[in-house]
Amino acid sequence: MSDLSRTTYSDVAGGDTRVHEHLSDRAFLAAILEFERALADAAAEAGHISPESAQAARDAIDAHQLDVTAIAAASAAGGNPAIPLVAALKEQAADTAGIHVGATSQDAVDTALVLCVRRAVRELDGQLSDVETLLADLAATHRDSPVMGRTLGQQALPTTFGLIAGGWLEAVRESARQLGLAAEALPVQYAGATGNLVATHPHGIDVHDRLARHLRLADRPLVWHTNRLPLVSVGLATAQVAGAVRKIAGDIIVSSATEIAELAEATPGGSSSMPHKANPAAAVACDGYARRTPGLAATLLDTLDCRWQRGTGSWHAEWQTIRDLLAATASAVARLHASLDGIRVHTDTMAQRTADRATGHAAEITDLILEGETRD
Amino acid sequence: MSDLSRTTYSDVAGGDTRVHEHLSDRAFLAAILEFERALADAAAEAGHISPESAQAARDAIDAHQLDVTAIAAASAAGGNPAIPLVAALKEQAADTAGIHVGATSQDAVDTALVLCVRRAVRELDGQLSDVETLLADLAATHRDSPVMGRTLGQQALPTTFGLIAGGWLEAVRESARQLGLAAEALPVQYAGATGNLVATHPHGIDVHDRLARHLRLADRPLVWHTNRLPLVSVGLATAQVAGAVRKIAGDIIVSSATEIAELAEATPGGSSSMPHKANPAAAVACDGYARRTPGLAATLLDTLDCRWQRGTGSWHAEWQTIRDLLAATASAVARLHASLDGIRVHTDTMAQRTADRATGHAAEITDLILEGETRD
Amino acid sequence: MSDLSRTTYSDVAGGDTRVHEHLSDRAFLAAILEFERALADAAAEAGHISPESAQAARDAIDAHQLDVTAIAAASAAGGNPAIPLVAALKEQAADTAGIHVGATSQDAVDTALVLCVRRAVRELDGQLSDVETLLADLAATHRDSPVMGRTLGQQALPTTFGLIAGGWLEAVRESARQLGLAAEALPVQYAGATGNLVATHPHGIDVHDRLARHLRLADRPLVWHTNRLPLVSVGLATAQVAGAVRKIAGDIIVSSATEIAELAEATPGGSSSMPHKANPAAAVACDGYARRTPGLAATLLDTLDCRWQRGTGSWHAEWQTIRDLLAATASAVARLHASLDGIRVHTDTMAQRTADRATGHAAEITDLILEGETRD
Amino acid sequence: MSDLSRTTYSDVAGGDTRVHEHLSDRAFLAAILEFERALADAAAEAGHISPESAQAARDAIDAHQLDVTAIAAASAAGGNPAIPLVAALKEQAADTAGIHVGATSQDAVDTALVLCVRRAVRELDGQLSDVETLLADLAATHRDSPVMGRTLGQQALPTTFGLIAGGWLEAVRESARQLGLAAEALPVQYAGATGNLVATHPHGIDVHDRLARHLRLADRPLVWHTNRLPLVSVGLATAQVAGAVRKIAGDIIVSSATEIAELAEATPGGSSSMPHKANPAAAVACDGYARRTPGLAATLLDTLDCRWQRGTGSWHAEWQTIRDLLAATASAVARLHASLDGIRVHTDTMAQRTADRATGHAAEITDLILEGETRD
Repeated sequence: MSDLSRTTYSDVAGGDTRVHEHLSDRAFLAAILEFERALADAAAEAGHISPESAQAARDAIDAHQLDVTAIAAASAAGGNPAIPLVAALKEQAADTAGIHVGATSQDAVDTALVLCVRRAVRELDGQLSDVETLLADLAATHRDSPVMGRTLGQQALPTTFGLIAGGWLEAVRESARQLGLAAEALPVQYAGATGNLVATHPHGIDVHDRLARHLRLADRPLVWHTNRLPLVSVGLATAQVAGAVRKIAGDIIVSSATEIAELAEATPGGSSSMPHKANPAAAVACDGYARRTPGLAATLLDTLDCRWQRGTGSWHAEWQTIRDLLAATASAVARLHASLDGIRVHTDTMAQRTADRATGHAAEITDLILEGETRD
Repeated sequence: MSDLSRTTYSDVAGGDTRVHEHLSDRAFLAAILEFERALADAAAEAGHISPESAQAARDAIDAHQLDVTAIAAASAAGGNPAIPLVAALKEQAADTAGIHVGATSQDAVDTALVLCVRRAVRELDGQLSDVETLLADLAATHRDSPVMGRTLGQQALPTTFGLIAGGWLEAVRESARQLGLAAEALPVQYAGATGNLVATHPHGIDVHDRLARHLRLADRPLVWHTNRLPLVSVGLATAQVAGAVRKIAGDIIVSSATEIAELAEATPGGSSSMPHKANPAAAVACDGYARRTPGLAATLLDTLDCRWQRGTGSWHAEWQTIRDLLAATASAVARLHASLDGIRVHTDTMAQRTADRATGHAAEITDLILEGETRD
Repeated sequence: MSDLSRTTYSDVAGGDTRVHEHLSDRAFLAAILEFERALADAAAEAGHISPESAQAARDAIDAHQLDVTAIAAASAAGGNPAIPLVAALKEQAADTAGIHVGATSQDAVDTALVLCVRRAVRELDGQLSDVETLLADLAATHRDSPVMGRTLGQQALPTTFGLIAGGWLEAVRESARQLGLAAEALPVQYAGATGNLVATHPHGIDVHDRLARHLRLADRPLVWHTNRLPLVSVGLATAQVAGAVRKIAGDIIVSSATEIAELAEATPGGSSSMPHKANPAAAVACDGYARRTPGLAATLLDTLDCRWQRGTGSWHAEWQTIRDLLAATASAVARLHASLDGIRVHTDTMAQRTADRATGHAAEITDLILEGETRD
Repeated sequence: MSDLSRTTYSDVAGGDTRVHEHLSDRAFLAAILEFERALADAAAEAGHISPESAQAARDAIDAHQLDVTAIAAASAAGGNPAIPLVAALKEQAADTAGIHVGATSQDAVDTALVLCVRRAVRELDGQLSDVETLLADLAATHRDSPVMGRTLGQQALPTTFGLIAGGWLEAVRESARQLGLAAEALPVQYAGATGNLVATHPHGIDVHDRLARHLRLADRPLVWHTNRLPLVSVGLATAQVAGAVRKIAGDIIVSSATEIAELAEATPGGSSSMPHKANPAAAVACDGYARRTPGLAATLLDTLDCRWQRGTGSWHAEWQTIRDLLAATASAVARLHASLDGIRVHTDTMAQRTADRATGHAAEITDLILEGETRD
């Protein structure tokens, strides 16, 4: 199977795979099992199935040996992985009444995706917080370090490197905040074949709300089979994070240019042909990951176009796209962290270019940014 | 000039140009004048210029005869319209001390864009509210009308048309809510050449905050020359509205198909060759406008990539893109309104296909949606 | 109407509107009239209508006073401009048998779009040819001028500016070649309501082929109502031109940076706040136009998704998108020309950085590029 | 490592992984070894290195045990996999003079990518050819089968199913043709650090041309480090194939709708909750893969934007994007094949809706399409 893992290289090459682990095929399928287990519990608590049926379901789920390759292959026929996985569980269970109670494939797939995405975002959030700490340190340390401000590539008027780093921080912090809000609002999906919970009526809404609590997911909107805003909002917020991060990487790349030489990565990349090179390789890789996100975000926006009570292709396109978005962004963040960690700020070179040292309100604005409410 | 107005046809063809009027070249340039006028006031109040200089600036601005074509032509040289417009004002003013005080071109252009965008969004919000009213009426009226739910194009299990319309409503309402929040958070831009207000120091931040109050814009982030999240967030929220709207149009198109015949526009479109056709022309046009937005959103996300203290191309790409996004979305909303207004719901045809009338929690969920907090 | 002409500013700001004139609303509607006129001729020649009917059609068309605003407004109802325009012609004609013979709206709209696009591309091709001349001059002039090659922003090994300019040339020339081929392959559209020419049977194919000859358009594929490859190919080739052009602008921007100072535009842009600035404003504007094209190309690719015998929204999205693509690219090309025309190449600065003057095969490769087959 | 293989599920779920095998991380790294081996041969033949050095290089390459995970992890530092792979080879070789002769990392990576892409396209081409055969059979079989043509979802006028299938065929054939041309034009990359082959001067161009022959790749453009048109053209052509394929899948989905019932997949997909469903699951999955391609194509177009003599992020974004484009398209093609293979055409249902049997030139046009030059 590893021969087919096309993205492994790229993800590993990001140097940090903690986010990616929540987005793997195995994690995705495991989250379907998690949905099924919590559903059995919720259905029993709501009195829709017997405690014995719930126990039988839990037993089957706990005993299930997940075979990612086999499920993947079996998914082709029905178009989604929930069908073969539920079939396997039913085959294994002594009593099938507690398995996939009143659910449709999309309930299982959507909730699993939500669980994976939320975990990935929480992990990413921690890494963004680390990046923010590095940026805040740069801003505070260089609160009064003069540097030539540049517009359209031209030296313009002096400012401080602290304000520049503060501006980087402000964008990362705000985009991370929006991402966190979108991810924490992710709802459970449990609505049955055509979205009205007919198969668990009259306990349906009760089961739904209990399921949400079990999984610690939001319970509204109650049905979102064809209202993909919850996931799309997370995806767009992710792309904003990538954009904020890419801006910083781009600035590091140009500021590390031989003739500018105001910044240098602590452990620059080498070259296969030129040993003297000190490439801002981490920043370049960051840009490489991040610039893949606008196109992925466009695809995700297109998935809002569902037909009747189920997307016909749009839903299927979503699974891979939101995972790619998060994976690329996480790799970008990891590489930016590597770029910023221990970055050398050549304040002498900066200062030489600013005979005029008036930097207006730069320090004050930097302070305002640093005082800005911190996350957590 | 009209020969060059490539989008006129499309916009007018949307049948409602109230939003587009806030996005025209004239509106954009007029908003630059509005920025300059408020800046003169704020600078005088903060004690940075004399009342007389402010009065001279106001006089020059009020007397200015805006020549859109001339400013546009003159913009090519410097790459933005603020340069020739400010030059013209300075030429006309008896005292130039009160014109463009401490500002850079981007301050004027960004704030003007923000003013245009916020007005366009407010106008659009009213139109979305009208669409929501139509959808809420459909949901309430058809709370108990059975219809066959369809997944992957196949009849699945019955549901109600009320719940379908309720789902449409929920997505429009939520996307409109997000758009409103993003637009109301739009900040003034006033930070000077390299973002530290050096030219108006030590009054700079005071001038900035007063200017924000004059224009009733947010005052944070204080500098966002190269942190484009405020505008990008509005653009992405706009694209979400377009996606929510497109989903409805798509459902109307397929539900109006000859063999389905469950919905029909009140005034369907004709054909140049087949008089018997009754095309869901408004829904089709809605889709046509809305599906242009994911690509535009991708472009906008790319504009987060600014270099040093100014975008080199990314900033310039933003002006047209966010206007196109709003214009296309507004046309989509206008055509959806035309499609929904008086739409015929063939409940008999719907009911014939649902021998089994069990619709589970459909009505309850519809009620929950209708009870959902209304906007305003 | 000018208040709604949102793109006028941008287009005019490109400084050259020769391409845009072929893409205006007026040009588009005039091309529909051109289609109708040639169709009357072709139908008469094929013996499908009488010479008198053809004459009556020609008379009505020639006498028609095109009212762009009125047609645009009337287009909303049917979803396309051919319906009201044909209706107006039929009202004016003494004999309607020769008007819109056997055609459907899409025949008129597609052919009109093709005519506009081909004219725009031919005009653009001339401008690209001028850019190629400037680039070839740079390559030849600086065939042996040493300059430091830079990778990832770092000085690497010396090369020549001639080879750099030669590389720019090669990309523009190749992308222009592909665009020309795609545009010259654009076919007439004339297939009737559902694509089988039933209304002009048995003369249909004869009329079709004669019509193609009249308009000097390709005659295959015979029907492409829902096979949008011909137009999409042109659009993608256009985006490739924009990408080739943007690469050059980007290099000019960084090479003009204060600390690099190897290139300088002949008439750099000023600043509204810093008189000392010499901005590469034309290159920046070029980038601003060009970077809008990838997103537009994505939209165009999405329009390949048509349903049954007509696109339901995808077709409608195409009109504006391909015009925007061409307009943005033309403006980018115009600004690149302004940037390159008279550009100052600081060979001394370049040479100072290349103590080692070995440039390998640079001159040879430059010669190979210059000898490369020229277009026309 | 399998835990990180995020795309495995999707790719395997396409049901056919023959194309994907050429796009795996292992295949990519193996192709770098292939480049290095051929380069040693070419350099020896051109007299630039000794036969002994070439033999030492071949021995080291042949003996190399590729450890994908280790190379991937080691790639993070330098930003590309050629650096650690070449380092490993040099460590293993008795004589390093024949390893990576005069090459830069990009030479190895680009050529490897080209080799993988060309193999993937050739494999895909065979599968497209199979799809074309199925489509040609449908067109020929149903040359005279009447079916109601539909525009904007409405029954319009009769046509034949043969012409519909013929139209599908024409688009697939043409897009496949363009893809084949673009892939066969893919050039070798071998130009050295800054593109002038200085390290192998005066044998550089000779080595280059020999290397091209060894790998059976085109030899022009001679340098394309920052002229990405060759790869971008392949990517765009791939996206066109995806679009052509998606159109067919979309038509199958709507024509399989319960109320239309004119087409049905031979082995429709089931449902986890509704055993009576017969979903066009293969067509839906096809759409799901194909609709990811426009966004990926936009990303690829953005990679044309390189800086100086190397892309700074744009190049890095290309590797994953073009592989994703090909993988998604291949999966879409595989699922379309599954959908078309044995598809049931309900000619009775079709005929019942066409009281009027006049289908104009439908059969003639179908014949023209079928006579169209076949590929190969």
